Amino acid sequence: MTTVAYLGPAGTYSEVAALQYLQLCHPDLEHDPSRLCPYPTIPQAINAAEHGNVDVAVVPVENSIQGGVTMTLDSLWQSESLQIQQAIVLPIAHALITRASNLDDIKVVYSHPQSLAQCQQWLDLYLPNVQQIATDSNTDRLHSVAEDATIAAIASERAAAIYNLPILKFPINDQPDNCTRFLVLGRTAPTTKGTHSSLAFSLKRNMPGALVKPLLVFADRQINLSRIESRPTKRSLGEYIFFIDIEAPIDDPNFSEALQELQSVTENLKILGSYSIA
Amino acid sequence: MTTVAYLGPAGTYSEVAALQYLQLCHPDLEHDPSRLCPYPTIPQAINAAEHGNVDVAVVPVENSIQGGVTMTLDSLWQSESLQIQQAIVLPIAHALITRASNLDDIKVVYSHPQSLAQCQQWLDLYLPNVQQIATDSNTDRLHSVAEDATIAAIASERAAAIYNLPILKFPINDQPDNCTRFLVLGRTAPTTKGTHSSLAFSLKRNMPGALVKPLLVFADRQINLSRIESRPTKRSLGEYIFFIDIEAPIDDPNFSEALQELQSVTENLKILGSYSIA
Repeated sequence: MTTVAYLGPAGTYSEVAALQYLQLCHPDLEHDPSRLCPYPTIPQAINAAEHGNVDVAVVPVENSIQGGVTMTLDSLWQSESLQIQQAIVLPIAHALITRASNLDDIKVVYSHPQSLAQCQQWLDLYLPNVQQIATDSNTDRLHSVAEDATIAAIASERAAAIYNLPILKFPINDQPDNCTRFLVLGRTAPTTKGTHSSLAFSLKRNMPGALVKPLLVFADRQINLSRIESRPTKRSLGEYIFFIDIEAPIDDPNFSEALQELQSVTENLKILGSYSIA
Repeated sequence: MTTVAYLGPAGTYSEVAALQYLQLCHPDLEHDPSRLCPYPTIPQAINAAEHGNVDVAVVPVENSIQGGVTMTLDSLWQSESLQIQQAIVLPIAHALITRASNLDDIKVVYSHPQSLAQCQQWLDLYLPNVQQIATDSNTDRLHSVAEDATIAAIASERAAAIYNLPILKFPINDQPDNCTRFLVLGRTAPTTKGTHSSLAFSLKRNMPGALVKPLLVFADRQINLSRIESRPTKRSLGEYIFFIDIEAPIDDPNFSEALQELQSVTENLKILGSYSIA
């Protein structure tokens, strides 16, 4: 029985991504809500997959405006057994959900810090004197929106539908091309043949200049990187882990050769998975 | 008259960094609190320096655990006129500030999301059932701590002293080597000779693989990079701006030559400043 952990509760963008995963990989289960397991934080959703409490976790890894989701990257680096099964890119469009009939009546706006940041210009312009309160997820305070018409929340259209609440303005995100990439993480290798691969490494010399060697390994073989991101090792300021996405499947002979060479110019190298993007 | 913008209110780590800047560069003003101007957000503090409402802004740019402060990096890239005058590295030690006499009495903990994240293991272990609420700054809810003994806040020892509140546990950060690097930003070039330089660039080809060329420019000249960080261009997923810190002053002939060559392998190159680190 396939079960899917996601950053809950129902109505988050993570749930939309989790539903899309079912539709894509397990179309027979798409309309079985019991397959979706909401978790209160990203690390808890990832841990559930790591420890086998669920089959996979669907978690955001990068937003086109806000950048990398650091909790996901850090959890992936620490994970012992998880592999990326699939990537899902989802357009993000935020709705202002409130029972207020005009903007002047709103006193407080609740949302996840990333969503607040993605609507910052709109909020500065249309709700300049409204208190913005960060919550653990977009849907955390929708019950308050239902009870009090001076409260608004920023969340998905789906969240408004699930909680049966009116949308006053849509879309309110500052950048129209806002999208988030989600990863499906599980303990087994993906069943479909991948088109992309992800890896992460730390460097022997604690200097980002040493990054040139791993990058040359790919450049010399004309292998395209689609993303690079650094995270602190948490040991001391100036030491990094680099996350790299590659436009090649892991069983490509050219890429396998690159991986061999990469071992010699990195300290700790982790293959995070080979997967396709939906 | 030198005035300093920082992420307020009084008692934040940014204020400690701002005081250290005065001590370092304007020792005569160190005990004149009227020189310090608190702002509610990092972009607002940076804008105040950009528009000349203050002389400099002191803002966090990188924490050893949490990584880059994305708001600071994004504001720096957008700024037309600001230069880095000075970098300040500050050890971060968090205190649990509360009038509760033992942990069992605490029901809510308030703090900035970065501080909550930096104490996550401690909170999971000692306050597992306590509600964690994210605030705009560490000191936002110290008035609530004063009024209600079931409330705690995570902030600096200085904050406890300023607000005359007791510390129940100290330090509570998960990593003992927690430190944050702050930047002092102003519209003029720094008066002291720098030891480090920072720059940022976007790439002509929208592929992170193209990053190998700019890195080779430095590697070929044995110039050490002390940091590399990517941020999304916000145009579309997969396009990045790279921030690089270099262990060389901008007037070093070797480095000047590198900068010339860098122009030809980047799309948009910004010199963010040449400065020393305190």
